Amino acid sequence: MCEMIYLPKATLERLKMYKKVLESVRKEYISSEEIAQILAINPELVRKDLSYLKTHGKPKMGYLVSELKKELNDLFGVNDFTSMVVVGANFLGKALATYKPFERAGVKVVAILDTDERNVGERVGDLVVREIGALERVVRRFKVEICGLCVSPDVAQETAQKLIELGVKVIWNFTGVRLSVPEDVLVVDEDFSTRVLDMKRYLLSRKK
Amino acid sequence: MCEMIYLPKATLERLKMYKKVLESVRKEYISSEEIAQILAINPELVRKDLSYLKTHGKPKMGYLVSELKKELNDLFGVNDFTSMVVVGANFLGKALATYKPFERAGVKVVAILDTDERNVGERVGDLVVREIGALERVVRRFKVEICGLCVSPDVAQETAQKLIELGVKVIWNFTGVRLSVPEDVLVVDEDFSTRVLDMKRYLLSRKK
Repeated sequence: MCEMIYLPKATLERLKMYKKVLESVRKEYISSEEIAQILAINPELVRKDLSYLKTHGKPKMGYLVSELKKELNDLFGVNDFTSMVVVGANFLGKALATYKPFERAGVKVVAILDTDERNVGERVGDLVVREIGALERVVRRFKVEICGLCVSPDVAQETAQKLIELGVKVIWNFTGVRLSVPEDVLVVDEDFSTRVLDMKRYLLSRKK
Repeated sequence: MCEMIYLPKATLERLKMYKKVLESVRKEYISSEEIAQILAINPELVRKDLSYLKTHGKPKMGYLVSELKKELNDLFGVNDFTSMVVVGANFLGKALATYKPFERAGVKVVAILDTDERNVGERVGDLVVREIGALERVVRRFKVEICGLCVSPDVAQETAQKLIELGVKVIWNFTGVRLSVPEDVLVVDEDFSTRVLDMKRYLLSRKK
């Protein structure tokens, strides 16, 4: 179990990037310069970020990759698996339900459910789409803490409500609807149409 | 055609939120207080952000919704449609190809392509999966500027290369691979496994 050390938000963002770099590295030691180079950022910044951790680099060698990896995994609780359920078996829901890299992040999708009977029984990766009526059973049995919410906008709020009543603590919201939830529930909004606005603006700026 | 005014990044982020609020509003005028209340932010901030625009509020009435909407649409170039192609007809690719709200953001998915012949010909919304060999034709014909890259990690870099050679300027990267691209190409990384790390950490913090 790790202690919950305080980390500035920007540092936390970069630590996730370092974690990802380490996953693709095949050597025993890595220096802050190497990490910085891969990510095209300042080595000083890498050193500063890593100074928050208990793992220290060795002079001329750098950081022991296995040790650094382990500490970053602990930091994000990657070693304890968290159960996630997907509600809404559209393409997006199926994409989440079969997203392989979740495993490396310590998240396991335990079920995908849908309100539309026609989708129930369909095979999605290792899972089979279940009827929404099974939600309570699934959440309790697997101690589900995260829900990937992919339902249609008109039932987004009521489905969120239901999930919260069942004790789900994080709603990963792909519905595009602004959900109102109690303070102790985390909503992570994923809005692809907002994301493309940055791209549009980038394209506009190029044309000036 | 809009001028490219300078906007602080945080303001730009919020303007996207205001744009979304306005889309759901059914009245003629809206005040900064109302916008602020819907988003649970400070009204002063809303006023400050909107002061960058040419649209001004009327005392006691607020902003003319249609006018404000139009200026925000211009700001993000929403009224000029941008063509997007999806490469990789997995669930994620299909989700992008059928994502309705893109329309409101002025983005149109003109084609979905796949390297796997078994997927070619499959119906995805209004589109049919085409073979990867059609990429050049599609990009030229529709003047494609954005690509939703959903291919498997092992072919991510080479596919990106190909797209860039064809003149695609924005790569929306769902592959999880760090792409190396020329400076004038925008890569927008979408990494779900990194996203869940924040959720994991939130859950950890609750358990302390």
